[in-house]
Amino acid sequence: MLKMRIAVDAFGGDNAPLDVLKGSAEAIKLYDDISVILTGKREIIEATAKEHNISMERIKIVDAPSVIEVEESPIKILKEKSDCSMAVAFKLLAEGEADAFLSAGSTAAIVVGASSYIKKIKGVKRAALSTVMPSDTGFFLLLDAGANIDCKPEVLTQFGIMGSIYMEKVMGVNNPRVALANIGEEDCKGDTLRVDTYQMLKDASINFTGNIEARDIPLDGADVVVADGFTGNVILKLMEGMGKVLSNSLKRIFFKNAISKISALLVKGSIKDLRKKMDYTEYGGAPLLGIAKPVIKAHGSSNAKAFRNAIRQARFFVQSTAIKDIEENIKSFSAKKED
Amino acid sequence: MLKMRIAVDAFGGDNAPLDVLKGSAEAIKLYDDISVILTGKREIIEATAKEHNISMERIKIVDAPSVIEVEESPIKILKEKSDCSMAVAFKLLAEGEADAFLSAGSTAAIVVGASSYIKKIKGVKRAALSTVMPSDTGFFLLLDAGANIDCKPEVLTQFGIMGSIYMEKVMGVNNPRVALANIGEEDCKGDTLRVDTYQMLKDASINFTGNIEARDIPLDGADVVVADGFTGNVILKLMEGMGKVLSNSLKRIFFKNAISKISALLVKGSIKDLRKKMDYTEYGGAPLLGIAKPVIKAHGSSNAKAFRNAIRQARFFVQSTAIKDIEENIKSFSAKKED
Repeated sequence: MLKMRIAVDAFGGDNAPLDVLKGSAEAIKLYDDISVILTGKREIIEATAKEHNISMERIKIVDAPSVIEVEESPIKILKEKSDCSMAVAFKLLAEGEADAFLSAGSTAAIVVGASSYIKKIKGVKRAALSTVMPSDTGFFLLLDAGANIDCKPEVLTQFGIMGSIYMEKVMGVNNPRVALANIGEEDCKGDTLRVDTYQMLKDASINFTGNIEARDIPLDGADVVVADGFTGNVILKLMEGMGKVLSNSLKRIFFKNAISKISALLVKGSIKDLRKKMDYTEYGGAPLLGIAKPVIKAHGSSNAKAFRNAIRQARFFVQSTAIKDIEENIKSFSAKKED
Repeated sequence: MLKMRIAVDAFGGDNAPLDVLKGSAEAIKLYDDISVILTGKREIIEATAKEHNISMERIKIVDAPSVIEVEESPIKILKEKSDCSMAVAFKLLAEGEADAFLSAGSTAAIVVGASSYIKKIKGVKRAALSTVMPSDTGFFLLLDAGANIDCKPEVLTQFGIMGSIYMEKVMGVNNPRVALANIGEEDCKGDTLRVDTYQMLKDASINFTGNIEARDIPLDGADVVVADGFTGNVILKLMEGMGKVLSNSLKRIFFKNAISKISALLVKGSIKDLRKKMDYTEYGGAPLLGIAKPVIKAHGSSNAKAFRNAIRQARFFVQSTAIKDIEENIKSFSAKKED
């Protein structure tokens, strides 16, 4: 059986390369149909694996000698440092040496890199950073989460189509409810962008359920939330901040004194369940939808589990028909528009 | 001593008129320097007061015979139904018969009404709906929360100035930190509107602390958060939704079984504190800043306590020098710009 090859940037993120290695080894153990190609400084990767006794079975290293400084611009990273770990991983994907790309490096660099090394799906105007977020009792996909600040109605409509296909084909959600983030439910609400996008989304072959007010977003109001990159980024980060408020609030309740600590013991299981639900690492990475090959961005502070789950996500993505389906749906939507 | 007269729309909000009456009577009891003028159908107000044994001491009724249907447009409400409870309250304020206006009715109608019955403060471009929101360990002012979808840099800068003065003079926050809601901290981040507004806010005579990412908004990152009405409304409602998630999460933890209920008893006080902190009614209503007289919007689902606290807020607003200070600061900022 031919194995799926996942190119992983070993030097992206706050916990690289150790947690990248650990996560990769864990994923390899779970799925016997994958292999991992780590890109980065070979000697450091090898030394780290040895020091921490991490198995390198089905993990190949492709040397990438350049080191990126945090403050370097994304364009510079990919143009001038084409032998840095991220660029090398992109090249493996571009040349067919890998089937998917994963990095916890700079979002801007991944967005720029994906569009320069890999082409977009035919007909797609913009690639969208698409983040799976926890909601009150489940999860939803938010796109765009910050890659495209200025969007036109057609761009947002394509986001709706791509998000719907990803949730159905990769995340296994049946007939996903796609909604447009807006400041009211009626179709006349919001600015011109929202009003025009509403009409266009109505004509797409997806389960468009209309506008969604921000209040209903974390309360399971939709499976796919469509937003321009500015609004989407505000939603993403505000939910992160409020997650932190929730966690701080629980700490203040339970760590106040000896009695509150006893109370915490009594509901330990439920607290653990809640923490798990709120934990972004459970949901894998954020795909860059619209790129012709699977490109996944992991959270900058990813730990080993987050990398393992992002590799799992990459595996589902490669196995799915999502990219082909996006191309076909976008094509037929464009044809319909021209009628 | 001359009493402050607060005009209160007795028929605005989900719990009108009963909770409006109750809240007014409670406020009257707390503050002996105020009187309340309730606007609405006299016979219903009188019957409600009698039925619920509510004291009408220092509460006057001004009859407003028209009834507004929920689906009526704000323009229609105020033009065609100029004898509805909200319009009558505005007229009292306009004619100097009242010192402040309070309503839990339609936000759009209040925004339109304030601009037509009362003039804006000299030099102010747009009035901003300004909401006090709970944060992790305190509170902050968000403006605009939804009255102005499209904003120019000068409009946002004025919001910063007005918000700073309100927080200092009415809410008692010393040297409030004013920040611009954006998708990154550096001054080059965001769209043209954000980049230009950043430069203009730097020149205002306020404690401008730069851009704030949405993650830091609920984590006490600023005392005044400046946003266009679309972004501000998304922030407001998403925080409401996440507050509901927090409350649902606590319920799931504590109401699971007999043991979890014992656990809840042990931390009862802390849970109560948290609920109080998250309770919007604690923070009074939302002022419409930029209008030449105090206009306050109470939450649509306000209960008696919310009305009482909104009247308290109106009282502080009238007592303060906020409106005069806004006029002076806006004037000197405009002069500085022209230099």
